[in-house]
Amino acid sequence: MELWYTEEHTENAKFSIKVKEQLYSEESEFQKIDFFESEEFGTFFTLDGLMMVNEKDEFIYHDMIVHVPMATNPNIKKVLVIGGGDGGTVRELTRYNTIEQIDMVEIDEQVVRACEKYLPITSSKLQDERVNLYFEDGLAFVKNTDNIYDLIIVDSTDPIGPGEGLFTEEFYNNCSKALSEEGILVNQHESPYYERDAHEMKRAHRKIKRLFPISKVYQFHMPTYPSGHWLFGFASKKFDPIKDIKVEQWNSLELKTKYYNTDLHVGCFALPTYVNEMLESADE
Amino acid sequence: MELWYTEEHTENAKFSIKVKEQLYSEESEFQKIDFFESEEFGTFFTLDGLMMVNEKDEFIYHDMIVHVPMATNPNIKKVLVIGGGDGGTVRELTRYNTIEQIDMVEIDEQVVRACEKYLPITSSKLQDERVNLYFEDGLAFVKNTDNIYDLIIVDSTDPIGPGEGLFTEEFYNNCSKALSEEGILVNQHESPYYERDAHEMKRAHRKIKRLFPISKVYQFHMPTYPSGHWLFGFASKKFDPIKDIKVEQWNSLELKTKYYNTDLHVGCFALPTYVNEMLESADE
Repeated sequence: MELWYTEEHTENAKFSIKVKEQLYSEESEFQKIDFFESEEFGTFFTLDGLMMVNEKDEFIYHDMIVHVPMATNPNIKKVLVIGGGDGGTVRELTRYNTIEQIDMVEIDEQVVRACEKYLPITSSKLQDERVNLYFEDGLAFVKNTDNIYDLIIVDSTDPIGPGEGLFTEEFYNNCSKALSEEGILVNQHESPYYERDAHEMKRAHRKIKRLFPISKVYQFHMPTYPSGHWLFGFASKKFDPIKDIKVEQWNSLELKTKYYNTDLHVGCFALPTYVNEMLESADE
Repeated sequence: MELWYTEEHTENAKFSIKVKEQLYSEESEFQKIDFFESEEFGTFFTLDGLMMVNEKDEFIYHDMIVHVPMATNPNIKKVLVIGGGDGGTVRELTRYNTIEQIDMVEIDEQVVRACEKYLPITSSKLQDERVNLYFEDGLAFVKNTDNIYDLIIVDSTDPIGPGEGLFTEEFYNNCSKALSEEGILVNQHESPYYERDAHEMKRAHRKIKRLFPISKVYQFHMPTYPSGHWLFGFASKKFDPIKDIKVEQWNSLELKTKYYNTDLHVGCFALPTYVNEMLESADE
């Protein structure tokens, strides 16, 4: 017998992973949660059937979502993570001794509990004493918080299902209000390659660039996401991720990273022409 | 009825494309050649079952294999292309009026003839008057040529089947001899992500870096190749692709490109840390 997990990247293209066994399958209040064990990618989990995190390439995503803003402003002390129930983003953040507070707001506690059981390396720092976990709606949390953060990371699913509110203008606007004058917003920014993903990429960029003086997009290779070409957004009131990168300061921390380095930090903001054109035309 | 083309990226991961119809299927002297029509990727063809070229993302591959060396040395006049039977590399080269001669050596004439029929845009410049087509073994051609080239592009399949000789030390050595003192060698350099591809990437790099004073690797997003993370090698006797890039000169040509631009040219040489480490340890 062979067991294969298949994800439709579009109606006409699909990616399949051979599965050793299904470890977990629950319908939470918000979504369908499945964990699998595989030869190629180790343990992985899906939400509503879409690949979220696997042991083989999660280092890419979490390196890029955390170290790019941290190398731009090493003085970041208070961080808000929206989503990110797997804990990988928090894990990378806790490597900075200079960070004093990490608030993580994940709508679905069941995701966190399952990741603590089945992805112990990814979720290993959720119990760090600087981390405060809130199992709430990120949209409402940001609207109601009196806290001011130096960095907000939107580590969300796609803008369907529980992640939908995290792609609205209201949400980005409340993020802007919850950020200090030196604040940085990094968000999961979809992909330029397949039409539906590109549509969401343009919608997100259009909203964010209206609200932030500096609004850029950077790319990375994420083999298990549709097309393997994925993007994060970098928005800020003050810091430019290329002009303001602190190369020597970041390298002096001697953090061992498998994907991120300060050369790549600069390089990943150089996008293909067709992606630049899509982002520039996002207003239309 | 549904018809799906499936490529095994590894034994445990596969990518599938919904096919409208199979256009062509022949066993040539060298390999199995298949052409398909699809909704997502337009017309595409495979050799021995592996994706080679499709209408949706071929611009990425051909932009990156041609414009990176051409922007590094715009004085390139004589070019040798090994492989590249689809004609996309030649098409991009012919956009430079300053190129005087393009010799293309493709072992399998049947690939060229089928591409002329089913991929007319990709193969559109194979009849350009500067192009000389040789249906020969690239390994023997480079060994026996008295020509001296400014640029050799190895647009090969993987190092199994007819492409195998194009990954040998003998071949790279003969390329070096057939290059002028200003010569540049660009080669299809596999991928760092899946184990088998990474193994070939390291083998190729080990051989090339022994022979050329300058030997670098650059990356791009190729959604239909395994993992979507693909590499080309840039080797040269004189030119450094970053220090010697002629940004203004290349932009003054006003070539419209969908993927390549001079910012990306610099950015694509910044590789993830794990890829750098693999390349550095290639000698071991």
